[in-house]
Amino acid sequence: MKYQPVKGMDDFYPKEFAIREWLSNNLAQEARKFGFTQVSSPALESLKLLTAKSGDEVKEQIFFTEKKGSEELGMRFDLTVPMTRMFVAKQKETQKPVKWFAIAPMWRYEAPQKGRAREFMQLSVELFGSANPEADATCINLIIACMEKVGLTSKEITIKINNRKLIEGLLAELVPEKNVAQLVQLIDKSAKISSEEFAKQAKALDVKKIEDVQKIISVKGGPTVLGKVKEFKLNAIAKKGLDELESTLALVDKKYITVDLSIARGLAYYTGNVYECFDKEGKYRALAGGGRYDELVRLFGGDATPATGFAIGLAPITVMLAEKGLIPKLTMGPEYYVAPVDEKVLEKSLEIAQKIRSQGKSVDIDLLRRKLNKQFDYANSIGAEKIVIVGEKDLALNQVTVRELKTGKEEKVALNKI
Amino acid sequence: MKYQPVKGMDDFYPKEFAIREWLSNNLAQEARKFGFTQVSSPALESLKLLTAKSGDEVKEQIFFTEKKGSEELGMRFDLTVPMTRMFVAKQKETQKPVKWFAIAPMWRYEAPQKGRAREFMQLSVELFGSANPEADATCINLIIACMEKVGLTSKEITIKINNRKLIEGLLAELVPEKNVAQLVQLIDKSAKISSEEFAKQAKALDVKKIEDVQKIISVKGGPTVLGKVKEFKLNAIAKKGLDELESTLALVDKKYITVDLSIARGLAYYTGNVYECFDKEGKYRALAGGGRYDELVRLFGGDATPATGFAIGLAPITVMLAEKGLIPKLTMGPEYYVAPVDEKVLEKSLEIAQKIRSQGKSVDIDLLRRKLNKQFDYANSIGAEKIVIVGEKDLALNQVTVRELKTGKEEKVALNKI
Repeated sequence: MKYQPVKGMDDFYPKEFAIREWLSNNLAQEARKFGFTQVSSPALESLKLLTAKSGDEVKEQIFFTEKKGSEELGMRFDLTVPMTRMFVAKQKETQKPVKWFAIAPMWRYEAPQKGRAREFMQLSVELFGSANPEADATCINLIIACMEKVGLTSKEITIKINNRKLIEGLLAELVPEKNVAQLVQLIDKSAKISSEEFAKQAKALDVKKIEDVQKIISVKGGPTVLGKVKEFKLNAIAKKGLDELESTLALVDKKYITVDLSIARGLAYYTGNVYECFDKEGKYRALAGGGRYDELVRLFGGDATPATGFAIGLAPITVMLAEKGLIPKLTMGPEYYVAPVDEKVLEKSLEIAQKIRSQGKSVDIDLLRRKLNKQFDYANSIGAEKIVIVGEKDLALNQVTVRELKTGKEEKVALNKI
Repeated sequence: MKYQPVKGMDDFYPKEFAIREWLSNNLAQEARKFGFTQVSSPALESLKLLTAKSGDEVKEQIFFTEKKGSEELGMRFDLTVPMTRMFVAKQKETQKPVKWFAIAPMWRYEAPQKGRAREFMQLSVELFGSANPEADATCINLIIACMEKVGLTSKEITIKINNRKLIEGLLAELVPEKNVAQLVQLIDKSAKISSEEFAKQAKALDVKKIEDVQKIISVKGGPTVLGKVKEFKLNAIAKKGLDELESTLALVDKKYITVDLSIARGLAYYTGNVYECFDKEGKYRALAGGGRYDELVRLFGGDATPATGFAIGLAPITVMLAEKGLIPKLTMGPEYYVAPVDEKVLEKSLEIAQKIRSQGKSVDIDLLRRKLNKQFDYANSIGAEKIVIVGEKDLALNQVTVRELKTGKEEKVALNKI
């Protein structure tokens, strides 16, 4: 019997791996350019931590392991939770702000779709210790830098932004306070359900006039639509949220920005600006998402610390880049392929391969004692650039034949010149 | 309450991460130089696959997850099993040999020790499709290249090598055939248990004369000790094993080799040469280990295919390199730190930061609106190289002040020259 990979989890063969590596190297490079340093955490966390401050939906999606020893463990579903735990552990001894990123897999048990697997990789960027809008702006500008780095511009993508305080403040005027959080969760799902279903669920939350909610969440447009928001009844919380949003937008590249009051972000831990990056055609899942989570550090046992961050999913962006032809041709083959003409020159061929490697080049060599024409086929199939043909006659003259695979051009090269 | 990382699993803060990254980049670079290409597989595999051909010890160590849907899943305990599954899936459509490597974490529930965590990273190198000694030699030569790359030479390390056919053939003369595999497993543990315990367990396997076993497994030394082996009674299997071993050793750098007939490798799937790399002082756990596993592809549902490979554990080698002072100083700080003198120049400072980034440099910037001296402290703490001081007076002259942190040297730089 053959074994399959686990449902919803992907193997990355050399070509797919090279694309993922190209993308993650580009993202990491941008994060470093913005002064973030990379960290990593275990795949497993205590179930207590994972369920401490996550929405119910996420809890159901955790892969948890059979109990080993005294701890109940689960596989991480994001990187913000582990990085916040890591921050709390070193909070006292580290100068603020702390700027970290991680690029790593995580796991969620949910229906697999194109661009959404049960194991998926994200770049996760976290910034602990600054409540200022320039911290949020740094994150948003870094998303833009990442997108531009791989060839996506404001022609193709937009960042939809909202503020949790603003939306919660506005909604507090329309539903009983205890139902505000649930209404936010409902709004977060609103694009995925019918308007009847939305109305039904909103009614269950004691929304007096659905139209008032609809009016709020239909605010969408460039930064200037914030003018419309000022016409709503703004309580103190809503005003604070609006101020956070405006002062952040002042520091980012506005051509990338769409204010959208229906953006809420599912996770329960957001407290301020929230945003998601989408392709403008609306063809793909969110490419990135993030926001401010000023309460999480305290909830995880640390001293109250403002925090903000975002994640970029590698799969959705790869799907989009592939369809747009924006993934460059990546070389994977070795620079040299050493082809022994027969067994007699095998040892010498291995020596020659080692010599070329010692100059920092990548070198493959025949391991099946094949005839030369079969070796040429193989060298072609792996994408080698040059073949070094090692034969007795050449060796007697202290030379080998080097053939460029693309052009077929051959030349004799002295052994001490190789 | 504060949350701890899971017992036996490590967080990698920026410094530790940088070391791990330095090491894994070096290892990946060497693997590529030998013509291997990188792949990756999910953390989870079906429990059926994981338990198909592993020793009992390994089975007990698997972290398996609560059943989700119809599949029973477990976390991988090595990378050979998943890569072999991946090979089987593409076997028909791919030219042989297939040369892959992966660098990734894996999980085993066992007692944590220095250099052995419950989550650990390995470079795993697999070579499918060649039964020839040059394939084994390629693997061993790659181990040597990896070690030399990070500064370890034959002064510090040695590769202990044996052959499963040789040892099994020799032992088949001393115990009932059905107990040979178990005796090999016992020999594999022999260094960790007392000689009384060894004798007791060997007796339970119907070993006639313990001394004969002792004599065999005490064969240790440079490649020339194979002369001694020829004095033992060699059946056809043992002879085949000896030939495999000798023809491989002819193609590797012999100064790194110790023949050691007590090396068996715990995993049940090895069929030919087996080897482990150790420091010569015997202070550390095995740095690398591998061997030939010609039956695994067929057992996983593929067409019978010879295969060989090895793994290098990142943790043991890091412990050794650290103690020997062989880990280079790694720079983690940004090249520039932009310091706004006050809030009035914040927006301009962000612009300057972006401009320097657009030249490919890494740039951090104050996010806490601190006084200049506090900013200097912070820039120092993160290891920045240069500070760009942005003040109104300078800006009025279209310039900024750039200060080298190490020397304290300052110069004025025109805005259009930055």
